[in-house]
Amino acid sequence: MGRPDLVKALLPESQMPTQWYNIVPDLPEPPPPHLDPGTREPLTVDDMAPIFARELCEQEFSTQRYIDIPEAVREVYRIWRPSPLVRARRLEQAIGTSARLYYKYEGTSPIGSHKANSSVPQAYYNAAEGVGRLTTETGAGQWGSALAFACEVFGMECEVWQVRASFEGKPYRRMLMQTFGATVHSSPSELTQAGRAVLANDPDTTGSLGMAVSEAVEAAATSGGVAKYALGSVLNHVVLHQSVIGEEVLRQLPMFGEEQADVVYGCAGGGSNLAGLSFPLLREKLAGRTDTRFVAVEPAACPSLTEGTYDYDHGDVAGLTPLLKMYTLGKDFVPDPIHAGGLRYHGMAPLLSHTVHTGLVEAMAVGQNEAFEAGIEFARAEGLLPAPESCHAIAAALADARTRTSEADGAAIVIGLSGHGQLDLPAYDAFLSGGLRDT
Amino acid sequence: MGRPDLVKALLPESQMPTQWYNIVPDLPEPPPPHLDPGTREPLTVDDMAPIFARELCEQEFSTQRYIDIPEAVREVYRIWRPSPLVRARRLEQAIGTSARLYYKYEGTSPIGSHKANSSVPQAYYNAAEGVGRLTTETGAGQWGSALAFACEVFGMECEVWQVRASFEGKPYRRMLMQTFGATVHSSPSELTQAGRAVLANDPDTTGSLGMAVSEAVEAAATSGGVAKYALGSVLNHVVLHQSVIGEEVLRQLPMFGEEQADVVYGCAGGGSNLAGLSFPLLREKLAGRTDTRFVAVEPAACPSLTEGTYDYDHGDVAGLTPLLKMYTLGKDFVPDPIHAGGLRYHGMAPLLSHTVHTGLVEAMAVGQNEAFEAGIEFARAEGLLPAPESCHAIAAALADARTRTSEADGAAIVIGLSGHGQLDLPAYDAFLSGGLRDT
Repeated sequence: MGRPDLVKALLPESQMPTQWYNIVPDLPEPPPPHLDPGTREPLTVDDMAPIFARELCEQEFSTQRYIDIPEAVREVYRIWRPSPLVRARRLEQAIGTSARLYYKYEGTSPIGSHKANSSVPQAYYNAAEGVGRLTTETGAGQWGSALAFACEVFGMECEVWQVRASFEGKPYRRMLMQTFGATVHSSPSELTQAGRAVLANDPDTTGSLGMAVSEAVEAAATSGGVAKYALGSVLNHVVLHQSVIGEEVLRQLPMFGEEQADVVYGCAGGGSNLAGLSFPLLREKLAGRTDTRFVAVEPAACPSLTEGTYDYDHGDVAGLTPLLKMYTLGKDFVPDPIHAGGLRYHGMAPLLSHTVHTGLVEAMAVGQNEAFEAGIEFARAEGLLPAPESCHAIAAALADARTRTSEADGAAIVIGLSGHGQLDLPAYDAFLSGGLRDT
Repeated sequence: MGRPDLVKALLPESQMPTQWYNIVPDLPEPPPPHLDPGTREPLTVDDMAPIFARELCEQEFSTQRYIDIPEAVREVYRIWRPSPLVRARRLEQAIGTSARLYYKYEGTSPIGSHKANSSVPQAYYNAAEGVGRLTTETGAGQWGSALAFACEVFGMECEVWQVRASFEGKPYRRMLMQTFGATVHSSPSELTQAGRAVLANDPDTTGSLGMAVSEAVEAAATSGGVAKYALGSVLNHVVLHQSVIGEEVLRQLPMFGEEQADVVYGCAGGGSNLAGLSFPLLREKLAGRTDTRFVAVEPAACPSLTEGTYDYDHGDVAGLTPLLKMYTLGKDFVPDPIHAGGLRYHGMAPLLSHTVHTGLVEAMAVGQNEAFEAGIEFARAEGLLPAPESCHAIAAALADARTRTSEADGAAIVIGLSGHGQLDLPAYDAFLSGGLRDT
């Protein structure tokens, strides 16, 4: 029996998941394979291993339902996991809804977002395989800080290409990465062939995740084996690591007396946050135990799921990554420099794209001003400033909740609150001063 | 039986304290009374009531051991309380100590520090008494954000005078206050007589908490009864509210199998964080059940406990506040603009001063560079960026822990981690670039 009067469900460390969940074996249709960009043949572990740690490549292609979380990774997870599932009672009252609003809050992690769930295992496996340095890209800076922290923990160097729009607009994130000992470059940079090519063409570009990926991959590939590359979203192994979020939610909802989540809203940039939250709950639905709806919320400025095509495309601008079957706006798409830097990606995780394509997950887009309006409403009621990315999920959830006023309409709505927005305050400041472009 | 292998002790909401603890009746010697600045007679509730909510004035003079926390306050506390007590295992390994290091982490609160523990009840009591606006001062911006949030919760306006050094150096905190709907002024300002007097004398002043207090008190006193004033530290009722910290620690230490804290280190600016953490543990010591040592750690740039005099002084520059018996550097003392803005106060909570004076609590000072060095060591091991204020406590605890290497030296050391430092990243940045003044 749960306690409907609870505000937040905290799990003891002993109930932290000990395995990640891989949705692949449970999908009604198998997801299309990644392809070799040269041969267009299905990619293999050996094809990816020069760039990524071998264990991560194994996970990328795994059809095993559950994969053990290494003890050393769980030890670091325990600094902040399990994360809280909170009932937003004050927000419910503020908008007068009969819905029960919950948020799964990943902002208690060391760097303030869900990204640490994957950076820690990625650094761990690389360190175990003797890699001395990890290269990566970062949009909002969330993934870069997460990897910088994880590299520090496992004694590796960390080199980050940060999308120029964020590098310039979010200096605090750069400082956070540097405090954890990382080296940070503005992307596109003069340090790589990929970066120089973009700059030659468009010196004033605001950058994009796709460009930064090219630079980081190139740096790893040309390091003579010293460095490998780490990706913060999109790929199957990242989605796998994020499944701890949803596994915890399944243990926490009953603490409130809820039998299921009726609707789940999560923001979708590369897709790992939403997939991590949703896939364990989707497993329950596919097994016929629940009838949860899942909604991916993307920014109107970068609408890959709602306006992109479902096709094979590269994950980066230079075409260094494998071909991934996904919803994409095209690898050369440069989104407006919206404040939700973590959502400025042309593609979408293949596994999430597949579930959207097969009708298991819905998708919608939200404008930037609507997102910040919802974020401020949330902050003033709950006292917690959400990341601009998370604001998109909040906006969609609030729009839904406002339509529910009678007891019969009541529903358990779960919002993926991927992180806090304290380092994004200039964006809130600009919004409050009326200065945001609404795309 | 506790679990020595635990990383963090999380209490369920049902074990959140329902009462605040007032140390006054348990002190071996009664603390000296506050005095009326005019008559130098002991102050009464009626003397303070024009400025503060009556209920808070009652608490200021209370000799009752326990005071019930109102249900409406507990409901807001439940957003983040109980806060975690975490064992810093990675830090222990990093420095090779036999000590067991714990940190009580208040950074999970909505605004990222312990200040919300008092802002919420202060706003609640004022709202209950029909007050429409609260005025206050803020140093680092922690208290200002906490009060801005609490005023929003209880439907009141909030007007904040932020010390100029912080207003200019920490724009993110101003933005956070504004996001919660508060009005923020740089102090000293032209809006008050007190501010104009200071500016006339020293237009380039970096400001001080004592000046900002004068401005906020004056604004309340001249508001025609619309506004009252709220103080974020120093006074007995603030120390009272913060006792939830220590009460929780007493419930959490046994979860690790610890019978007591052997040493407690907390930073001391106005004193409420350290007193809130320590006084419930001091009660246990005074009752003969433990032999915990308590250490107040202050910045070398503002050493009220270690170099000030124990005497009656005003809490503000203009002399508007009551005379408080405390360790003080003199109300006109303007500390260097160190980054730990929350510690730049000339005085110290009378109750904490009394316990230092009577030998119950020890005091020491730490330099700014030593504090940041320790903070970065902590961040890289635990993944959590501490507030510059908290870095002082960490520095003292690490110096202690480094002397303990044998099993016989082992001890349970509890650090008061009053908040996170994500909004203080420019200070870390300056330190890493070698640019801090070491005072």
